[in-house]
Amino acid sequence: MTTQVILAVDIIRPEEKMLWHSLQTIGVKTKILNIKKEALPLGKKKHDLKDSIALIRPVSMYRAVYTAIALETNNSRTINNSQTILLAGDKIQTYKKLLENNLPIPDTTIALTRETALQTLLQHKKPVIDKTPIGSWGRMVSLIKNNETAKIVVEHREMLQSTQTKTHIIQEYIPTNGEDIRCFVIGQECIGCIKRKAQQQEWRSNVALGAHTEPIHDPIPNELAIKASQAIKADYASIDLFYHKEKGYLINEINGVPEFKVLSHTLKINVASELVSYLKKIGKK
Amino acid sequence: MTTQVILAVDIIRPEEKMLWHSLQTIGVKTKILNIKKEALPLGKKKHDLKDSIALIRPVSMYRAVYTAIALETNNSRTINNSQTILLAGDKIQTYKKLLENNLPIPDTTIALTRETALQTLLQHKKPVIDKTPIGSWGRMVSLIKNNETAKIVVEHREMLQSTQTKTHIIQEYIPTNGEDIRCFVIGQECIGCIKRKAQQQEWRSNVALGAHTEPIHDPIPNELAIKASQAIKADYASIDLFYHKEKGYLINEINGVPEFKVLSHTLKINVASELVSYLKKIGKK
Amino acid sequence: MTTQVILAVDIIRPEEKMLWHSLQTIGVKTKILNIKKEALPLGKKKHDLKDSIALIRPVSMYRAVYTAIALETNNSRTINNSQTILLAGDKIQTYKKLLENNLPIPDTTIALTRETALQTLLQHKKPVIDKTPIGSWGRMVSLIKNNETAKIVVEHREMLQSTQTKTHIIQEYIPTNGEDIRCFVIGQECIGCIKRKAQQQEWRSNVALGAHTEPIHDPIPNELAIKASQAIKADYASIDLFYHKEKGYLINEINGVPEFKVLSHTLKINVASELVSYLKKIGKK
Amino acid sequence: MTTQVILAVDIIRPEEKMLWHSLQTIGVKTKILNIKKEALPLGKKKHDLKDSIALIRPVSMYRAVYTAIALETNNSRTINNSQTILLAGDKIQTYKKLLENNLPIPDTTIALTRETALQTLLQHKKPVIDKTPIGSWGRMVSLIKNNETAKIVVEHREMLQSTQTKTHIIQEYIPTNGEDIRCFVIGQECIGCIKRKAQQQEWRSNVALGAHTEPIHDPIPNELAIKASQAIKADYASIDLFYHKEKGYLINEINGVPEFKVLSHTLKINVASELVSYLKKIGKK
Repeated sequence: MTTQVILAVDIIRPEEKMLWHSLQTIGVKTKILNIKKEALPLGKKKHDLKDSIALIRPVSMYRAVYTAIALETNNSRTINNSQTILLAGDKIQTYKKLLENNLPIPDTTIALTRETALQTLLQHKKPVIDKTPIGSWGRMVSLIKNNETAKIVVEHREMLQSTQTKTHIIQEYIPTNGEDIRCFVIGQECIGCIKRKAQQQEWRSNVALGAHTEPIHDPIPNELAIKASQAIKADYASIDLFYHKEKGYLINEINGVPEFKVLSHTLKINVASELVSYLKKIGKK
Repeated sequence: MTTQVILAVDIIRPEEKMLWHSLQTIGVKTKILNIKKEALPLGKKKHDLKDSIALIRPVSMYRAVYTAIALETNNSRTINNSQTILLAGDKIQTYKKLLENNLPIPDTTIALTRETALQTLLQHKKPVIDKTPIGSWGRMVSLIKNNETAKIVVEHREMLQSTQTKTHIIQEYIPTNGEDIRCFVIGQECIGCIKRKAQQQEWRSNVALGAHTEPIHDPIPNELAIKASQAIKADYASIDLFYHKEKGYLINEINGVPEFKVLSHTLKINVASELVSYLKKIGKK
Repeated sequence: MTTQVILAVDIIRPEEKMLWHSLQTIGVKTKILNIKKEALPLGKKKHDLKDSIALIRPVSMYRAVYTAIALETNNSRTINNSQTILLAGDKIQTYKKLLENNLPIPDTTIALTRETALQTLLQHKKPVIDKTPIGSWGRMVSLIKNNETAKIVVEHREMLQSTQTKTHIIQEYIPTNGEDIRCFVIGQECIGCIKRKAQQQEWRSNVALGAHTEPIHDPIPNELAIKASQAIKADYASIDLFYHKEKGYLINEINGVPEFKVLSHTLKINVASELVSYLKKIGKK
Repeated sequence: MTTQVILAVDIIRPEEKMLWHSLQTIGVKTKILNIKKEALPLGKKKHDLKDSIALIRPVSMYRAVYTAIALETNNSRTINNSQTILLAGDKIQTYKKLLENNLPIPDTTIALTRETALQTLLQHKKPVIDKTPIGSWGRMVSLIKNNETAKIVVEHREMLQSTQTKTHIIQEYIPTNGEDIRCFVIGQECIGCIKRKAQQQEWRSNVALGAHTEPIHDPIPNELAIKASQAIKADYASIDLFYHKEKGYLINEINGVPEFKVLSHTLKINVASELVSYLKKIGKK
């Protein structure tokens, strides 16, 4: 593989270290692009950014999107590309793409003002979920069990600055006992799925919130995950699913700059190495 | 025309009144969708939103995008569609599409952190422009003439809440004497261009900041405007251009939910009526 | 009365109109100081602000405080003075003054970080109240009935910008059936008290949230209100009280720039006129 | 000394380590109160907080104020007390106290809205200073040399969330070649003053912004510093002064939770030890 690989980062997580290590192992020329240190020109001007394969890894979603755009305008092949990262990063846009591809999602209503949010939440069967279009690790995902809590959520959200975080995604609550499924897709293939189980006194199954994990083997989530990943044209992605007793598996969320340390451990798969192999295949094309 | 038209709004500006009037004139069945009063379901559930042609007019960019998405998942043809509104609403995404289509833009650098922004601004030839990816009416578009001002901009931006408004678009200043060109495109056609001239003591040519306007007749901006509009697949759009002495016309910005009162007056064209005619053509297809 | 009266305002509410009318009735020379139009010098420089009696009425608390300070440095007698407005405007400072004067308040804990707030709320007997030190009309006052809601409040508060609104006042919930008492004190005298009763489906008794009112006649709240007003050295103030079955009346909040339209109507007292009489007495001293 | 000392902290800076070390040296019983781990009850309930001498050291101003208040309601003698920390922490309140005591400050105007701020800045002789009432280390202190920069500052400030950070303190610029004087007062005594000189390309003399320091020996700043400290009833404080060619020394700012590492080094004085000696004297009273 002669093409240069750019590893674009802001904060170095375990994932970025694993990726760096895997890239070194196969001996590919790699440039670390630290966006905290380098500003990025739009258009083809910066020699050392041109014509590369770029792994886009900034933690903050918009930083990842804008890094990808800058590299794309410098003729680099970005993984994931800016459009995919944005589609995954904004849950309303994710749902749009899933619905277009006839993929199952929870019942969802969008409320764009405090009035419509309050009205929808008060009238909705409880419990009900309220979340923002952007945000990670379960942050500002609220389980609302009564009208007082609905008012609390609406009042606090109204204090935030950006229209995006003032937007309410209101969803049916799916009783899963704090469990969800996370699958990891690279290219056309699902390399595995894990079950995440929320810790006691927490209903959200985010590992950042203390969830436990175990491997699962079930063809249905595998297949859904691949379709979801393709719906947003991802090179790779993690996909979160809920199991609904009547409706079956529903897609809750896709991550276009996914973490994979926990999944690697749980499944005993070297995800970084799998991803680097995928890069290598692309580099040869 | 038998298809229902939805006029989706939050704040009613003169433009929305003109559109309503024009729709009444041709006798088309019109539903006003006030997103301050109605929450919007994702997916095909709401009878009165289905299978319509929807004019997306909320003032806030993300509200416009999410309104368009909700209507698209209800099988409506949106004008503009959600993707176009988002591409126009985020200046970095706009520039990406323009560059992909070999359309001319000002020299631009993206700085994603306070450190890279400060470094870029201090090293840049002055004056230099600093702006955010989102925002309207010239807000937070800064003309920086010296290093003190660069520091002021970077420090204040860092206090904002969202990553998007913390992102710096840093651009060459184009000495235009406070003039720019605004063109208006509907479908494949540019219906006219005006020159906007900033009032004294203001370098920005936004009408909201007191600029004066006059008609201009020049085939080059017309043609560029059409190409810019097509680059983001807009049904209609306003396009802002600067004239650079050596590089010629450069595209500065596109608006996907454009105001047009001033342009209508300056050119003595009924833009609302032109737009409604365009809708009618689409409705017949 | 020969001293000039300054009526310092930002938004003109019914209260400010009533005050203006009462001032005209007694024929006192009055200057309206609109702080949206006039910047205020610190120190004795501005002739038309000097040596006056100034009624401080801006709606925003810090605007009221800073207006009062500017006028005080111009030798004006402010009603209320800046220190009183600040003590009333910051609930933690209010409680400090009440405790120093052995006046009864609800059981209160201050949590200055998300960790201590979450810990305190999770361990606290439910329901429990969480509120911010600053803020009016019941905004961001949360009734927390379970641990999920506690997490929601803490997460959302952490997104706010200022340390003050990130501070948690955590209090015992006092079961009052949505009722509280509001008393109005001018000088050494309580001119009356009303009972406010929250509308159905709301536990907060703010009139802004739809509460109903009726007069009450009970010497105990009267006396407490006077003591509370004196604890913060107010010229006039409204005082909110809760009735606790075992502890008796507790002071919940004091307002140093109080509204009084509803209280005037409920008690059939012309509060503006009473306040102007008080000013007149001061002017004569 | 038998009274317990409480060292109240959030972030542990070098200053807090020096204070801890000095307290150990004299063998006083010391409790570290980490407000990131402990919530604080209002009123006399918490045994281990009662009847102590408390050094208030949280970095964030409001956290320091509220920590002091909680300890004061638990019968502790706070150093500094809550009122002093607040008076120093809010520059408008500081100026009020200085003016009341006939102490010299720069010419200052308060603008409470964007309109009055813009108007004042545009009309003011340039350069002019614009700052917020709260904030440390020179943050959001702007040197404005022209009208474009004035507009930039006003627009950006308007985007901030709290009324306090939207408030503009507008001051004459004092040409000091980037120099100021910092004095340190404990009790009735000024233990020394240093000159701070801004690094090249920076006009602000904050050490956080790279300033250099040297000792100075001049009785006038010493005396002014003591008077300034007494004006806000500080037990100890650092005081920043500017030298104005015609007006002489002017007081710019007081810090009620001051850092002192740099001053200790520059003057070769063990400030922590001096402060602990002061505590000891108080403990004996």
